[in-house]
Amino acid sequence: MITGQNYVGFTPSANGSKTYKTFNPQTNTENSEVFTEATPQEIDQAVALASKAFKTFSKTSGKDKAAFLNAIADEILALDTLVETYCKESGLPEGRAMGERGRTVGQLRAFANLVAEGSWVEATIDTAEPNREPMPKPDLRKMNIGLGPVVVFGASNFPLAYSTAGGDTAAALAAGCPVIVKSHPMHAGTGALVASAVIKAAQKTNMPDGVFSNLNSSGIEVGEQLVKHPGVKAVGFTGSIRGGRALYDLAAQRDEPIPVFAEMGSVNPVVMLPQALTEKATDWAKTYAGSITLGTGQFCTNPGLLFGVKSEALTQFIDVLANEIVKIAPSCMLHPNIKSAYDKNKSQALSQDDIAIVANYTADVKANYAQQAVITVDGKTFLENTTLHQEVFGPFSMVVQCDSLEELETIINHLEGQLTGTLLASDNEAAAYPNIVSALQNRVGRIIFNGVPTGVEVCPSMVHGGPYPSSTDSRFTAVGTQSIKRWVRPFSYQDWPEQLLPEALQNSNPLGLLRLVNNVQTRDNI
Amino acid sequence: MITGQNYVGFTPSANGSKTYKTFNPQTNTENSEVFTEATPQEIDQAVALASKAFKTFSKTSGKDKAAFLNAIADEILALDTLVETYCKESGLPEGRAMGERGRTVGQLRAFANLVAEGSWVEATIDTAEPNREPMPKPDLRKMNIGLGPVVVFGASNFPLAYSTAGGDTAAALAAGCPVIVKSHPMHAGTGALVASAVIKAAQKTNMPDGVFSNLNSSGIEVGEQLVKHPGVKAVGFTGSIRGGRALYDLAAQRDEPIPVFAEMGSVNPVVMLPQALTEKATDWAKTYAGSITLGTGQFCTNPGLLFGVKSEALTQFIDVLANEIVKIAPSCMLHPNIKSAYDKNKSQALSQDDIAIVANYTADVKANYAQQAVITVDGKTFLENTTLHQEVFGPFSMVVQCDSLEELETIINHLEGQLTGTLLASDNEAAAYPNIVSALQNRVGRIIFNGVPTGVEVCPSMVHGGPYPSSTDSRFTAVGTQSIKRWVRPFSYQDWPEQLLPEALQNSNPLGLLRLVNNVQTRDNI
Repeated sequence: MITGQNYVGFTPSANGSKTYKTFNPQTNTENSEVFTEATPQEIDQAVALASKAFKTFSKTSGKDKAAFLNAIADEILALDTLVETYCKESGLPEGRAMGERGRTVGQLRAFANLVAEGSWVEATIDTAEPNREPMPKPDLRKMNIGLGPVVVFGASNFPLAYSTAGGDTAAALAAGCPVIVKSHPMHAGTGALVASAVIKAAQKTNMPDGVFSNLNSSGIEVGEQLVKHPGVKAVGFTGSIRGGRALYDLAAQRDEPIPVFAEMGSVNPVVMLPQALTEKATDWAKTYAGSITLGTGQFCTNPGLLFGVKSEALTQFIDVLANEIVKIAPSCMLHPNIKSAYDKNKSQALSQDDIAIVANYTADVKANYAQQAVITVDGKTFLENTTLHQEVFGPFSMVVQCDSLEELETIINHLEGQLTGTLLASDNEAAAYPNIVSALQNRVGRIIFNGVPTGVEVCPSMVHGGPYPSSTDSRFTAVGTQSIKRWVRPFSYQDWPEQLLPEALQNSNPLGLLRLVNNVQTRDNI
Repeated sequence: MITGQNYVGFTPSANGSKTYKTFNPQTNTENSEVFTEATPQEIDQAVALASKAFKTFSKTSGKDKAAFLNAIADEILALDTLVETYCKESGLPEGRAMGERGRTVGQLRAFANLVAEGSWVEATIDTAEPNREPMPKPDLRKMNIGLGPVVVFGASNFPLAYSTAGGDTAAALAAGCPVIVKSHPMHAGTGALVASAVIKAAQKTNMPDGVFSNLNSSGIEVGEQLVKHPGVKAVGFTGSIRGGRALYDLAAQRDEPIPVFAEMGSVNPVVMLPQALTEKATDWAKTYAGSITLGTGQFCTNPGLLFGVKSEALTQFIDVLANEIVKIAPSCMLHPNIKSAYDKNKSQALSQDDIAIVANYTADVKANYAQQAVITVDGKTFLENTTLHQEVFGPFSMVVQCDSLEELETIINHLEGQLTGTLLASDNEAAAYPNIVSALQNRVGRIIFNGVPTGVEVCPSMVHGGPYPSSTDSRFTAVGTQSIKRWVRPFSYQDWPEQLLPEALQNSNPLGLLRLVNNVQTRDNI
């Protein structure tokens, strides 16, 4: 049952007077549950509990953390109104809810496996050389440890997989960091249900009170107070550039600056090489009509920018894309605010000088349903008009028709940082354009060959992140088990007594970890 | 020969009108060489060259980068006036110059070995599963790549090992990032000689022009312009908290924020447990008299804060430390400015209320020689007077006499972040105080058992860095081969054609790297 209360550690709490409701964009009506925003005192309590919990949780064994993470997954699957709540707070269909729940549970179990195995701590040992000249060499042993309490801002477009117990939370808990979730106001009920599952799992597996809190928030105040709080040591955020940058700036201005991992906007450029278009213009156009409208265009990897060199084949691509995309039935956006932002940004793009509208779904749609559109523009106009470089979050894309491959390369070099870049090329064609590939690589975190950017596989090789402003720190991924690296720091023990070392660094290697011992990777003991 | 020019890429250049000289603190006279500060145009040129060089240098093979790094080491060893120049610009003795040169060359060769072997790219491969339901799994392959041009600010206290071709430069070049050094004005000649060695090595090993530049600077303008330059992608700095924070703030305020790795102040707390003092007060006091004055106290790991619980043994420790430290012959500081800052900060500490001066070398010394001092204070006074928490850079330390171990723990919890913490304990004593050990660990990057914090081993297990303000980013070390991680980002290839993949990610594993393939660490091919 959704009570609308916060979880301050294990304790439900609703001391505040500010309340709000979520909204069902499919029915265009408010949902009935009332949520109480967290007060400054509740925020302080949550951070104090997290700081206290960190002392023990940071030293909890990998096996016990794995039990906690698996229990969260089990409790989420046991929530009987989760899918229904998800749908009525997001406008997304049941299939998507089920899929995203599966992804969320899969992520939790992947992190459970990671910490149960344990080598993620990157144990590194250099043994002493007491007789070395001119100075003895000390014994040094290093491993990763948690940073401290982490604040997670849920994403509007992933109410499960990148929110309350989503990727950021799973990674931070795996690292031994207590998590305080700033609940997303658009899906506060979904968040509350998942939070209840996390709390239940924490209690069942004997985790310390404060290892997890969930704070309701309808505006920016709760988030701001959390990011400025001296007890908070890192922040995870998925959302807009404006929101992410504001948090980054707040964190950078603290007496003790802290890292903010904000995964923000991206238009995910797609470069279509000439031969690929000549051979497969129609196929790619159909594929991209689907990718642009997938999830009502509300994915951070949505392809918002398609590049080609002027040719008959490119014209054919545009024609087919235009014809196909308007055949796709419009679908519901996450919230009226997101729909109105889409309409505003789309109108702005459509009203720019020297662009052509090639597809524009104008038939009537239900409230909060998005009407897809595609525009085209030449390379010179695109280069000069930076308004056209901005993301239009929704089922919208733009085809840039370049005069030459040189112009295409120049444009890529002028793009802002992106999560992904895609290359469409025929056999052996990619090898002929190393400069274009290199320019694209320089602007993105992941490069895709003959595919679509939508669909972000959760695996160790995934990079979801990229040069600013696609993320605030290109050195870390937000998706996949390697995202645990955002929440840890290396720590070094010098000449520390064997019996006081963490198990990961003991001579006998009781955890059987892969370790770097005197510059050799090994699972052997010392 | 020192010409006083900048190196804008391979080209010596001195277009500016602002000039300066270095200073010999031993003779208290200016050195004769005249250095010309870089102009804004020269800075732009250096960054443009670095950006261009990045395109090829970032793709240079590990073997070729290793040849470059080893050639730098060889050329440094071939410089015949380096030691003499070092001594006359730093006031440090010849033995220290030789030792630091050895460390510098050793670091360069360690990074050469790291990149020649190649597994530092952390190659990670997840192979495709085309038949997976409900969605095929793509082929994903990830590796670390360089961030782009890096600016390195040399350290005043390590004219070789953490300056022109020091740890930051070696790590950035190893990562495939061109380096622009903002030369330290106090040892501009030493820097110019080393820069000439780097340029010679780059030319001999066919590296691109712009892979390295060395820009003279006497004030803050050159550094500011570099940190604000859109072409610069990361910054390394070793120095004061004020300087490091200013650069961090500038970088955070850019349109595209960039990482600044500033290794800043630290007082390196030493906790002396009761039994350790009872058994070895005299030995530890003698050892610490040496550690406090080592290198005229000009190490970032200098022990500036010693904690014990009031006892006869602690009194004995203080008495012996006081007697021993004044027996040590005063030595020369790096520069008159550093000497005057030391005198000012020491005087401020000595004039605080409720402290006792236990050692104060007051006999006459040569100009720029530092007079060592030790004060003592009780725990309550220390907690209340934050002036006493500030670093006094030089041969100075403070013994804090706590009423109890509880008070000691409270004080540790209130300390700012530190590079190191040291525990002095008798056999089995450390196990009796887990809270104190845990509190200390929480404030530092490296913890030392029964030793001194001075002496920073260059090895993979070293962490030189720690919670703010000891560094701006506790997630990275500034010393040791793992410092390469500061200059790289992960990059992911999806369904990329085998023949276009970098060698590190190819099926046949031509480099023989240790890779994570479908979640298993292996050197096997696919």
